[in-house]
Amino acid sequence: MSYPEPPIVAALRAVLPADRILTDPALTSGYSHDEAEWAPYGQPAAVARPRNTEEVASVVRACAQLRVPVVPRGAGTGLSGGANAVDGCVLLSLEAMREILEIDRGERLAVVQPGVVNDVLRATVAEHGLWYPPDPASAPWSTIGGNVSTNAGGLCCVKYGVTRDYVLALEVVTADGEIVRLGRRTAKGVAGYDMVSLLVGSEGTLAVITEATLKLRPLRTAPARTVVGFFDTLEAVGEAVASVTAAGLQPAIFELVDRHCLRAVEEWKRMALPLDAAALLLAQSDLVGQAGEDEAAAILAEFQRAGARDAIASTDPAEAEALFDARRLAYPALEQRGDAVLTEDVCLPRAKLATMLERIEQISARHQVLIANVAHAGDGNLHPMMITPRHDEAARARSQAAFEEIVDTAIDLGGTVTGEHGVGLLKRRGMRRELGPAAVRLQRAIKAAWDPADLLNPGKVLG
Amino acid sequence: MSYPEPPIVAALRAVLPADRILTDPALTSGYSHDEAEWAPYGQPAAVARPRNTEEVASVVRACAQLRVPVVPRGAGTGLSGGANAVDGCVLLSLEAMREILEIDRGERLAVVQPGVVNDVLRATVAEHGLWYPPDPASAPWSTIGGNVSTNAGGLCCVKYGVTRDYVLALEVVTADGEIVRLGRRTAKGVAGYDMVSLLVGSEGTLAVITEATLKLRPLRTAPARTVVGFFDTLEAVGEAVASVTAAGLQPAIFELVDRHCLRAVEEWKRMALPLDAAALLLAQSDLVGQAGEDEAAAILAEFQRAGARDAIASTDPAEAEALFDARRLAYPALEQRGDAVLTEDVCLPRAKLATMLERIEQISARHQVLIANVAHAGDGNLHPMMITPRHDEAARARSQAAFEEIVDTAIDLGGTVTGEHGVGLLKRRGMRRELGPAAVRLQRAIKAAWDPADLLNPGKVLG
Repeated sequence: MSYPEPPIVAALRAVLPADRILTDPALTSGYSHDEAEWAPYGQPAAVARPRNTEEVASVVRACAQLRVPVVPRGAGTGLSGGANAVDGCVLLSLEAMREILEIDRGERLAVVQPGVVNDVLRATVAEHGLWYPPDPASAPWSTIGGNVSTNAGGLCCVKYGVTRDYVLALEVVTADGEIVRLGRRTAKGVAGYDMVSLLVGSEGTLAVITEATLKLRPLRTAPARTVVGFFDTLEAVGEAVASVTAAGLQPAIFELVDRHCLRAVEEWKRMALPLDAAALLLAQSDLVGQAGEDEAAAILAEFQRAGARDAIASTDPAEAEALFDARRLAYPALEQRGDAVLTEDVCLPRAKLATMLERIEQISARHQVLIANVAHAGDGNLHPMMITPRHDEAARARSQAAFEEIVDTAIDLGGTVTGEHGVGLLKRRGMRRELGPAAVRLQRAIKAAWDPADLLNPGKVLG
Repeated sequence: MSYPEPPIVAALRAVLPADRILTDPALTSGYSHDEAEWAPYGQPAAVARPRNTEEVASVVRACAQLRVPVVPRGAGTGLSGGANAVDGCVLLSLEAMREILEIDRGERLAVVQPGVVNDVLRATVAEHGLWYPPDPASAPWSTIGGNVSTNAGGLCCVKYGVTRDYVLALEVVTADGEIVRLGRRTAKGVAGYDMVSLLVGSEGTLAVITEATLKLRPLRTAPARTVVGFFDTLEAVGEAVASVTAAGLQPAIFELVDRHCLRAVEEWKRMALPLDAAALLLAQSDLVGQAGEDEAAAILAEFQRAGARDAIASTDPAEAEALFDARRLAYPALEQRGDAVLTEDVCLPRAKLATMLERIEQISARHQVLIANVAHAGDGNLHPMMITPRHDEAARARSQAAFEEIVDTAIDLGGTVTGEHGVGLLKRRGMRRELGPAAVRLQRAIKAAWDPADLLNPGKVLG
């Protein structure tokens, strides 16, 4: 039995080579959602995999003509449902556009296509003595286009900033299929409104990114110094984070792993982690020479003053790596058990970190959901993970209720509903509450001005 | 003889205390333009000097009702005509709103009213061990509101970024007089479009800024190391700048002073500056301890390799200050001679710096205009200054022709028409050429969406 193809598929076949188009549901279903647990998604009419900007523009123009929604997508590693299909849409995958077009050491910039994988870019520019700092946990798979669309963060941003801080210029395709270059190649520039920053984090709702010009830093070559400490109470953890910041120290990495994660890692890998600690803090100084030693010693002193035990500073890279494994393995340790993991991404004022962690314990108890936490502690960016047995509908409902309560608690404590994962589908209610109606109206006005037919990733962010 | 007051003045009197309103042309004329040489300006119907956000909203609402343009203004130190009055407008001066509302060492932020002077903020937060880096030359007078509106730069931005990098949140009054809070207090956040970055640099055309939450850094306490070198050719200057950058060095300041400026300073202050050099380069390392010494030595080595003479590195603060006087005194040295000084602000890829300086020499010769240059060399941000006898109309015309030719040359070399001064009135043509019609259309769509009656600083930026 065969169904007639929808008109948009015929239109795509008219403008793209055949190998750019997927319509077999067995193939397209793999493109229909990102990694957000339980975020709704529909069935795309087709997946388009263009190879260049002109092909992207052709796809968008075909969709504009037939009023078919376009959902742009990178590697699909998002955690908010921002790349999820709506029924009948064209899923525009940028994964085949993965050329690094230029690396310029003198101007410290790279020009890349959106499908370039984050870690590939980092490794390639390193060969030129350059460094691209934004390092989301998805870096081995996620693409620069997706990173730009969500303003991805990572471990390094506590000192070096987020993706937005590294985007100088963009080439985009607008909702009516026009190719436009925005931004600049120079170190500074104020010619007109900052359209580039507007597009960074806009999750494909304002334009499709087809090229990015990225600012780079000189490659760091000095060995990092790692400081770790285990803390008995969340209060002591909060105190350590606050006092490191207030002392004017600037660790290049400053992470937290809570007791649930420590236990999961220990049960999986047997690393002799202390299971009675409330949390582990890990910091790294990347200052050169004596300054790095001094900073590591100062961080260690603040940890100890706050009551850390087993606190040490280490310059041995192997030892440092082992200590960081507890952080790196936390998510896979939880995930390999086969449970559903719903990941949060609230960001708090640093001073509210301990309070937030205590509230999360209360929320966990109230909803009977295991909530494990990792955090970019120095940024106040928490990733509570709600762990739920698969196919347990009641547990799922409790997990989702806890998720919403964490969002509201973050707002009440002066934080934001999303630090680095984006709004997508899961944070729309929270975002509206956080921003308030007037700020949302200003955002909707921009969306309406640039995409009046609401064809670019409809329903995401602004809903 | 007395004229009836325009309706907007009566409307302002109805909503503001009398001492907030100026209508005497003898008083209002001082508010009618910024420091841009020869930029056109009109006569305001009134100057409003509100003391709080509610008063600002009242002014904007009164203007919206009567369809009277509103021109927001800080200290009036702008160099592009961005704060110039249009006939019959209300000049909205934020100078009376100069409270520092909050300084938070733990969160490293300050909340300020728009009229706070840049240097006052820097000095005040320093008492709390904090640092606000953006340091435009106007810092002793210019206000944070103006700095945010123009995305001001300065000397430190070569390493520490521009104003946009330090704005976390804004309170604004929209074109219809609504008070809206945008942004966040947390280190990170991606809840919706980045309205804050959009407003930074929008020169009062999208909303009136009534409060800013600013990110701060820990105060630097280590002594800076200064490196200077005089160069015989512009080519050697360009080589030195390029090789310092390519070597991965990150001076905290990296400035250029050309021979015309050296001569003007020498004639004024007698500092024994060499008058046969093409330019002076000044760099500073602020790395701590041995790392700073190493960086200064590496910069010195690059200077010498490029052919610098009298190149030295110095840690003596008094000696360093004296060396920097040649940079600091360049503009006043030119200005105190009584000539008109039309200041440019192009920004080039660093590799094009020498080419641009050579082109400027040709433009200077062709138009018979003395053009002196200072530059934030490490950013490629040049400030050519066209020096013209006052009241010489022919010289003025030649000066303005040279100005436009510099703008076009910067675009042709891959640069931007404005690095840090903004578009205002003087760079509108250049901006349109630089961005192209499609990018300008996207900007106009935002302006139309937020200010459909075109009442906020009409005619500026987009024209």
